[in-house]
Formats: sequence, C-alpha cells, structure tokens
Amino acid sequence: MIGAKIHNLALKLWPMNRSITGEGVRETLAEISKILPTLKVHSVPSQTKVFDWDVPKEWVVREAYIISPNGEKICDFSINNLHLLGYCIPFQGDVSLDVLKEHLYTLPDQPNAIPYITSYYKERWGFCLTQQQFDALEEGIYHVHIDTQLFDGELNFGELIIKGKSEKEIFLSTYICHPSMANNELSGPTVVTFLAKWLTERDIPEYSYRIVFIPETIGSITYLSINHDVMKKRIVAGFNVSCVGDDRAYSYLPSRAGDTISDVIAKHVLRWTDPNFKSYTWFDRGSDERQYCAPGIDLPIASIMRTKYGEYPEYHTSLDNLENVVTQQGLDGGYWIIRRALEAIEQNKKYKAIVYCEPQMGKRGLYPTLSTKISNEQVRLMMDFISLCDGGSSLVEIANRLNVPIWDLYELVGILKSHNLISAS
Amino acid sequence: MIGAKIHNLALKLWPMNRSITGEGVRETLAEISKILPTLKVHSVPSQTKVFDWDVPKEWVVREAYIISPNGEKICDFSINNLHLLGYCIPFQGDVSLDVLKEHLYTLPDQPNAIPYITSYYKERWGFCLTQQQFDALEEGIYHVHIDTQLFDGELNFGELIIKGKSEKEIFLSTYICHPSMANNELSGPTVVTFLAKWLTERDIPEYSYRIVFIPETIGSITYLSINHDVMKKRIVAGFNVSCVGDDRAYSYLPSRAGDTISDVIAKHVLRWTDPNFKSYTWFDRGSDERQYCAPGIDLPIASIMRTKYGEYPEYHTSLDNLENVVTQQGLDGGYWIIRRALEAIEQNKKYKAIVYCEPQMGKRGLYPTLSTKISNEQVRLMMDFISLCDGGSSLVEIANRLNVPIWDLYELVGILKSHNLISAS
Amino acid sequence: MIGAKIHNLALKLWPMNRSITGEGVRETLAEISKILPTLKVHSVPSQTKVFDWDVPKEWVVREAYIISPNGEKICDFSINNLHLLGYCIPFQGDVSLDVLKEHLYTLPDQPNAIPYITSYYKERWGFCLTQQQFDALEEGIYHVHIDTQLFDGELNFGELIIKGKSEKEIFLSTYICHPSMANNELSGPTVVTFLAKWLTERDIPEYSYRIVFIPETIGSITYLSINHDVMKKRIVAGFNVSCVGDDRAYSYLPSRAGDTISDVIAKHVLRWTDPNFKSYTWFDRGSDERQYCAPGIDLPIASIMRTKYGEYPEYHTSLDNLENVVTQQGLDGGYWIIRRALEAIEQNKKYKAIVYCEPQMGKRGLYPTLSTKISNEQVRLMMDFISLCDGGSSLVEIANRLNVPIWDLYELVGILKSHNLISAS
Repeated sequence: MIGAKIHNLALKLWPMNRSITGEGVRETLAEISKILPTLKVHSVPSQTKVFDWDVPKEWVVREAYIISPNGEKICDFSINNLHLLGYCIPFQGDVSLDVLKEHLYTLPDQPNAIPYITSYYKERWGFCLTQQQFDALEEGIYHVHIDTQLFDGELNFGELIIKGKSEKEIFLSTYICHPSMANNELSGPTVVTFLAKWLTERDIPEYSYRIVFIPETIGSITYLSINHDVMKKRIVAGFNVSCVGDDRAYSYLPSRAGDTISDVIAKHVLRWTDPNFKSYTWFDRGSDERQYCAPGIDLPIASIMRTKYGEYPEYHTSLDNLENVVTQQGLDGGYWIIRRALEAIEQNKKYKAIVYCEPQMGKRGLYPTLSTKISNEQVRLMMDFISLCDGGSSLVEIANRLNVPIWDLYELVGILKSHNLISAS
Repeated sequence: MIGAKIHNLALKLWPMNRSITGEGVRETLAEISKILPTLKVHSVPSQTKVFDWDVPKEWVVREAYIISPNGEKICDFSINNLHLLGYCIPFQGDVSLDVLKEHLYTLPDQPNAIPYITSYYKERWGFCLTQQQFDALEEGIYHVHIDTQLFDGELNFGELIIKGKSEKEIFLSTYICHPSMANNELSGPTVVTFLAKWLTERDIPEYSYRIVFIPETIGSITYLSINHDVMKKRIVAGFNVSCVGDDRAYSYLPSRAGDTISDVIAKHVLRWTDPNFKSYTWFDRGSDERQYCAPGIDLPIASIMRTKYGEYPEYHTSLDNLENVVTQQGLDGGYWIIRRALEAIEQNKKYKAIVYCEPQMGKRGLYPTLSTKISNEQVRLMMDFISLCDGGSSLVEIANRLNVPIWDLYELVGILKSHNLISAS
Repeated sequence: MIGAKIHNLALKLWPMNRSITGEGVRETLAEISKILPTLKVHSVPSQTKVFDWDVPKEWVVREAYIISPNGEKICDFSINNLHLLGYCIPFQGDVSLDVLKEHLYTLPDQPNAIPYITSYYKERWGFCLTQQQFDALEEGIYHVHIDTQLFDGELNFGELIIKGKSEKEIFLSTYICHPSMANNELSGPTVVTFLAKWLTERDIPEYSYRIVFIPETIGSITYLSINHDVMKKRIVAGFNVSCVGDDRAYSYLPSRAGDTISDVIAKHVLRWTDPNFKSYTWFDRGSDERQYCAPGIDLPIASIMRTKYGEYPEYHTSLDNLENVVTQQGLDGGYWIIRRALEAIEQNKKYKAIVYCEPQMGKRGLYPTLSTKISNEQVRLMMDFISLCDGGSSLVEIANRLNVPIWDLYELVGILKSHNLISAS
C-alpha cells in the first residue's frame, strides 16, 4: 500500500518548523528531493514585489519559551512548534500574568488543543497553548524568552517540470508552510511527492506536468507573478492538493468557473469512488485556488480532498496529527483518487467511429453470432460506446452519458482502436 | 413616509372622470404637472392612424342618470362616474324596465359593487349599478337621460424625458384612463409621479428616463406608433407600473422574452423585499406590456406590482377605493420597490479586479491582521465579491451568486473603487 | 376505422416466410404494391459491399421438419415458420436426442411459446419449439430434414418517393424481415402502407417523403450505403416505424441527438395523445435508428411506438400474434399517432405578426366589443398566440409554450392568415 510509504515520509517531515519562509521549508524540500531528485528549489529575495504583495522577511526561531513564576518552562517551542505564534517577533522580558494573557491564544472549546495562529503581516509576539495549560497559570511575574529574527532573506519553493508528449500541462500545487500538523498540511506535499514519483517513472505522459511545493498564498502569488504567462498558455487542468490524508470523507471544491475539465473529471472520479462525496462551492474555498482562479488568472484548478480544511474538529490545532487524523489508509485514498483523476485527464480524448453505421462485430469476433432474447451487458456497452463516438464527445462525457466510470472504458477503447473501429479525433 | 404624499395626490385625482380621452385625462395631467412642472402634455387628433388602430373620438359626459317610475334619480354619474358605461353614447327616452335591463350591468356575486365596464369600440348606451340597486328596481317606465357626446377631438398623454449620463433610457409607463378606482388605477400614476419627482431632483442619473402617463392600450399603441424607432434604439430596461397601491402582496409579471435585465432586476429586488412575492407568467398579462413586448416591438418591459389586476376581489369595481384597498403603506411599498429596481439598474455595472490574485488587504486596512480560526463574515463577503469581479458578470449577477441583495454591495463597490482594487469595465 | 383495413392487410401478410432475404420478402412487397402501385422494389446482389458489411446470401426454405422416434413429424416449418432457425443451413440425417438437443431452442419461462431465433452470420442448423414440446421428446433416434439453401441471390427492399412542395424530405422506415409475428413486425409495414396511401392521395404535401420497406439492420445499412448522401442533404425529420399494433401503451425512443425536430414533434404528439406515454432513452434502442443515427450518418430519426420491442412478454415469440397482441384498435392508434406527427411537421412553420402591437380585433369581428370582467378562453388563446408570432418560434414551440396540442392551432392559423394578421416567415 502506497499509503504506508506516504505516511512514513510524513513522519520524517513532522518535526520541521515550516512557515512561509525559513529553514523548515528548506529542510522539507531537501527531504522531498531525496525522493524526487529532479525537484528544483527556487529562492526569491525578501521585499521582491509580487503583484500586489511583497515577499516578506525570512523568519528564524532559535528558542522560545516562558518561565513561570515557579520556574517552570512552559510553551516551549522546542517541544511543539505550534506554541509560538507564527512569524512571532523577538521579545525578552518579565511581564505580569495580566500582560502575558494579552499575548496568549487558546481554544476554550477544545481545552486540550494548542491552536495554530500566525501573524505574518503585523508584528506581534505571542504564544499558543491549551486552555488547560492557560487555566493552570498562577498570578506572578513570567519571564518571556523569544529568540526569533525577521530579516531580509528569501522565500523558497520547489518546482518539478515533467515533459510529456504535449507541451500542454497538468498542474499540481501543494503547501509546505504548515508546521507540525498532519491533514492540513503534511498530507498534501507527501501525497504529491509520491504522485510526482509515479509520473517521473512512467512512460512519457500525454501531457507535461508542472508540480509545485510552495508556501500558501504568498507562495502561489509569488509563483504566479513569475510564471502566469506561460501557465495561462499551457495549463489545461490541475488540482490544488490539500487535506488528502484522513479517511473520513472525500470532498470536492470547484474552480471559480466551476465547469472546467478539472471540475468535470474531479466530480466524475469522486462520484465513482465515493458516491457520498461532499461537494463544496466556490464560497467555501480557502486554499490556493483563491489565487489560481482569481479574475485575470483564471486557471482551471479544482480541489479533490479527503476531509476539507475547516471541516474537521482538529483543523489548525495540535490535534491534527499523524496518529488519529491522518492514516496510511487515508493517504492511500488521497493518492489514488488524484492519480485516477490524472489518468482520466490523459485518457479523456474524443473518439470518432471510423465505419459508417454499426460495424459488423461478428466477423471481428466481437459479437455473439446467435441472436437471442437474452441481452448481453458487455456487447451492449460496446455498441452503446461506439454509437457515441461522434468525434465531438470526450471520453468522460461519454462515460457520464453511459453512466459508467471512465476507467471501465479504457480497455474497450484499446480493443476498438486495435480493430480500427475508432480513432482519436 | 412618501406613501402619505402619494396617497394625498391620489385623493385629489380621485373624482376626475378619466377615460381613454377627454377632460378627466387633461385634469389629471394638469394636477400631476403641479408636481412635475416639466411634464409635457401631448395631443393626437381623433382618427389618426396608429398602427392597426385609429385614435377614437373624444368622449364628453355632461350629465347621465335615470329617473325611476317613482321619480327617484338613480345611477347618477355625478355621484359615481362608474355608473355610466365607459364611452356611452347619448340617449334620451322613456323605456320599460325590461328594455332598461338590457342596458344595465351588475355583478351578482358582489352585490354591493358597481362594476367598471367600457365599450370603446362599439356604440352602446348603458349603466352600471350594484346588484342590490338592480334588485330593488320596480316595474314601470324609466326615463333615461344621457347627455354625452363623441366627437373628433384629441387623445392626450403626458411625457417626461430626463437626461442622464447615457442616452440609453429606462422607461416607465402608467395609465391615466381609469375613472374612480384606486389600485387599478390611481396607484400607478401617483407612484410614478413621485418616482419622477425623485429622479428630477437627483444628481444626473446614469441613464436617461422616458416616463409616460397614457391611456391603456390605445395610448401605448399611439405612443409607440410615434416613438418606437427611438424607443427600440435607446430603451435598455423599464417597467409598466400598475396596481402598486395595496399592501397585500408583491407581484411580478415578466416581459415576453422573460430574461431581460428588467426581469432579472425585478425578480432580484422582489425576492429580497418579499421572498413570497407572486410570480406570474406572460399568459397572465393584461396591461401595456402587451404592446411594449409585442412581436416586432420587443422592448424589455416587465411589471412589478403589489396585488395584480384581476387578482383581488375589488378589481374593476367601485370597491377598489383609497380607504380599504389602497393605503399609504401600500403605496409606500410600491414606490420603494420600483425605486430600488431603478437604483439597481443604474448600479448594475460589470466590475473588473485591477490587481492579479487576491489583493493584500492588510496594508490597506481592509483585513484583520491576525489570522485565526474565527471566520469573519464581512471580510468573507469582500473577498468573495472581488473573486467574482471578472469584468464579465454584472453586479446583480454577482449578488445572485453571492446570495445577497444587490444593495448590500453598493457601499463595498465604493470602498473597493476608492482603494483602486476594482473598476467598472 | 382505418385500423380494420390495416389489420386485414396484416392477416394477408401473416403466413409469408419473411427473412432478411428471400421469396417471403418479395411476396410481402408484392402484396403491399397492390395498395401502393408506385412502390419500387429494388434488389441488391449478395456479396455487395455495404459499408462494413456484405449483403448475405439469399435464403430459401423448401421443407424443414423432424421425424421423431415414433414417426411423428414435429417442428414442421410448413405449420409455423418460427420452428426453423432463421438462415438455417441445409441438413439431413439421423441424430440421437442428445445431439438433437444441441440444435433446439426453447423458452423455459414461456413453455407454450416458440421463440424466434436467427443465425444470419454464422452457419448453423436448428429448430425452435415450445418448452412443452421439448419436454415431451423421448429418447431415440430423430430424423432431421432441412431442405434449405443459401446461395448468391439478392436482397430486396421497397422504396416509395412522394414529391412534395419542397425537395426536403420526411423519412419513414419499416421492416419486412420478420416472419409470422404481429407487433414486431407486421404492424410497422402495414401501418406505413396505409400512411403512404394517405400521403399519395392527398394534395401535394409540404415536404417530399421517402418511405422504405426493408430488412432490419442489413437493409438499412444497404439502403444508407446507396443513398446516404442524398438522405443527409434532404431529410429533415423522420420516424422508424416498428411495434405500432398493440393497444397497451404509447412509447417514444429518441434519436441519438435527442433534440431533433422529430423528437420534439414525437414528444408533443405523444403527450397530447397519451400523457402517460412511455419514454425510453437512446440506450434502450434496438431497431434501425441504430443505423440512421449512427455517428457520421446522424439523421434526425426518432421512434413513436405502441408497446416497444422487448417490453412485452410475447415479443419475438409465436405468441406475438394478430389475435391477442395486435388489434384493429391498436393499429388504428399506431396509424393516427404517426399521421398526427407527420401533419405536425408539415404545419410546423414559423409565423410572424404582420402588424405592430396588438391588432384591433374588433373591427375584424374577432373580438367581443364589450370589455367585461369575464374572461374569454378563445380570445385569450388567439391573443396569446399572436403575441408569440415573433418569426423565430415554430408552431410546436408556440404550442408547447401555450400548453395546447399543436392541432388546436391549425384553424386559428388559418383564420389569422386569412385576416392578414400573421404570415409564415
């Protein structure tokens, strides 16, 4: 089961302190590069103008903790990187409990969870802790020790281009900016790593592939600001890969247009994998489709997920882990559903019947020779399929009309092509 | 409340003997001109050819009543102008009750209502009375006195053109041919009078306005026969305004095409004003949309009403009055729903996001700087709205997709324009 | 009742041994020619290449039966032509019961029915019999006598071209290849014979008609291989006529495209004849629409049926007879529904209102002159109809929008044309 290998990679990446910049990102990309040697790691200097945004300063964390009045070290970043507010500025000093509390973040409704909070664009210091820890704090003077630094460094991302028969591209994008959380988001980069491994080891694919491992939002904006011209020209389909690691549901979130080939394929593959898959709308979005589908960008990018970000209780907390939330089974399902979607896009050609009228199947050994009242499902499917090969309908449209999964047609297409009865048009 | 002012105007217009021609029409237009000094009153001579029709003779009523066998004056036009058949020819003479009855019209199912009946295109004499009055008639000789005249005069209508930034026009049409009845039809001309007053007192509107006060059917046909070329060239939207004075319902009747901008706006405004509004079809029509939407004319004219003509028990009877049917509240609702529709048409531009990808809202002070799990409705609406500003969707289409009333977006549009984030395309 | 005449013709055709070739086909066409003297009978030599197929050998049956161990003659072709496997090869010889059974076909679920089985494209010998007959067979040696022959002869079909005002054609196609069965298929050729008779005896129709009596599949493929260019150029609508003789249901099976004028008219006529008509899909097809609608052929051919082939228990058995399944009443309904469809296609023009705005109906005597509260259904329909005569909507589209059968509009169209109020556009 490929899910086991993916889970193993996730365990390796778990402790690294990922953020939108920094050493944790580079460590993550380095680990992924062991599996994908051709992955190219790019860097963009801080303050670079990217559309309406500026690449932020790079963030480094050396140490961060609080010493309580009784000398206990709490909220220690080295124990759980979620304890420190993301992009926390440096601070050293003694503060009363009242002052400290203005810098503490908890989830009262989930008393045993450390929340995941960031403050990328406003300078703040702060810690995140469980409500239980918070409630146990006693009056007194706390010593705050935050040895971080924000400096002009770089923003990094990984990029893998796989050449296919066509210059037209399928695009996959996933995050490497979340610290120690599992479904959102170690599932995305680990699943994409193994999809990319499969793609590089296959025969030359029908389409080229553009695969990126980026920090969310600022990363996709940065990547688009550099590449959007070529992306608009080449990309015909693609998926934003996030939250593909738990085993509780399958989910779909559309592109802005809602009817691109990525949407059609996503819905088809989901329906035939899990008829109860959950369907979200554009207004439920919250990942990099916000950039890829923005007006003027308009790429055909949809999302296929397991349980969507924001829709499970452990989301953006320390409870989103590799034991209870993300499983080998869950990652396996996430891998295969996206792989099936990629295969479907590659297979999704338009076929045209070569002979006029129904072919004489009997002389080709493709038809029972004795006509009886008893129907024959297989022959029926074959004749129905040929009857729809009008050169104007794509394979997924035909599969939808026939009410069968597209993969049920792959072998049939091969047989009919080999008998010279249909041709891709 | 503007409804009070409108009701007051209706009270003034109430006693005038409106018909498709005549002094009552001119008195009505004169009264309206006091509020709309720039209203232009036109006249078209009787017998003028207007498409398939001829402008009819002008009708004057000096006196009309019946003297009963016991000397009582009944069906007196001076007491209620509905007593006389519309366009009644002159007649003087003594008739038996049996003969008289052939000239009397009642509503057996509404025994206390005088019906409203006209005979514009066939010469007849007759009276309308309540079934109760009818049942009380005794045998004997009745003296009929109808001092009316049909002569080559003129047909009158009022027209107000308001110049806007664009030469393209929004059209409003209403009746001034119904005698003393309230919802159908003093509500239409009185509401339109105050809408026109608002339009003339505003800043220069986006569109020009063409507003007409006309007799039904023959008036719209006459007006179209003179103006249809310019109307077809200029009119982009409009409403036939009738039955906008009671407080029992909101209603919509489509244009013939059913999908013009007038229809889209009407349904949107109605839905967000009264989700239970009643929706009629083209086959329920019965007002001047019959002419404005006729094949070859094809103007985008829909109807927004309170309770539709023909759909309330007092319709076309003496019971359709300014006490029980039409109210200040009802007129107020009628005024505001059409005003909201006009505002929506003016606001209904297509907007285009100026920056690629999501803008950095934080640096503009438009975004909370601390990203937390807690969602923010306002920010969400703003980002959703920007995501739909693709230059191809109109504001009402975006509002429909966002499932919010269009007026919830007016302020947001202003803010985003002022921050140079969107522009009208 | 025309159904009686059609039933009578079916009785005459019943005993003839129809197949895809042979004397029975020619006898059938000769009998039909008595009613349709201008029917042209064509012949195509065996082995002629027709698209992907070859015209098969001609089949002749002189005698065929089995002598049982006790000397009884069973499965005698001269008693019921269904006893012999269609296209059975010659065979003479003595066989054990076990060997014989490999050549016998029965329907265990319908023990008193002889099944209809053919083996056109693989050489076989065999008999069909009831399960009851089969169960009574005793051990012993059976003498099989099959005096048949397959030789290079010809395939025959009948063709009738009726010239109309337009060169554009309506196409009717039906089978003459089924031996003694009634709904599938003596109903088709007999109903079409009387439709053709009506068409030749009428005034010159709006469209030309192309009517063919052919063997199923190989006949339509042969006919198309000769005529498809002219057919594609000329045919605007048409029906495959099969299973139109029982009185249990009305049915519709679409063309492949599903939205041709044949489909629109078929559904309209069916809906107003039997609102409970059964609607099938393209995937339920099984007749010559498979060829007429094949990719690259793409003719607008739908099917209007009574009970569809495969959907009644007697289908393709000796129980499908002219007593219990096909009735005079059933054939009458089959005739009239297709005739109504043909009439509707001829009437289905686009009409345009000649005058702008509503016409003055009163001066033409088409309108009550006294306007009262009482509505008038007839006038309403007339005014609604005129309001839809925009030159862009066909009569059936207008009828559908008005929710009336198209034939309710034929007289109205005549009246309005005679008053010069509408014209065909």
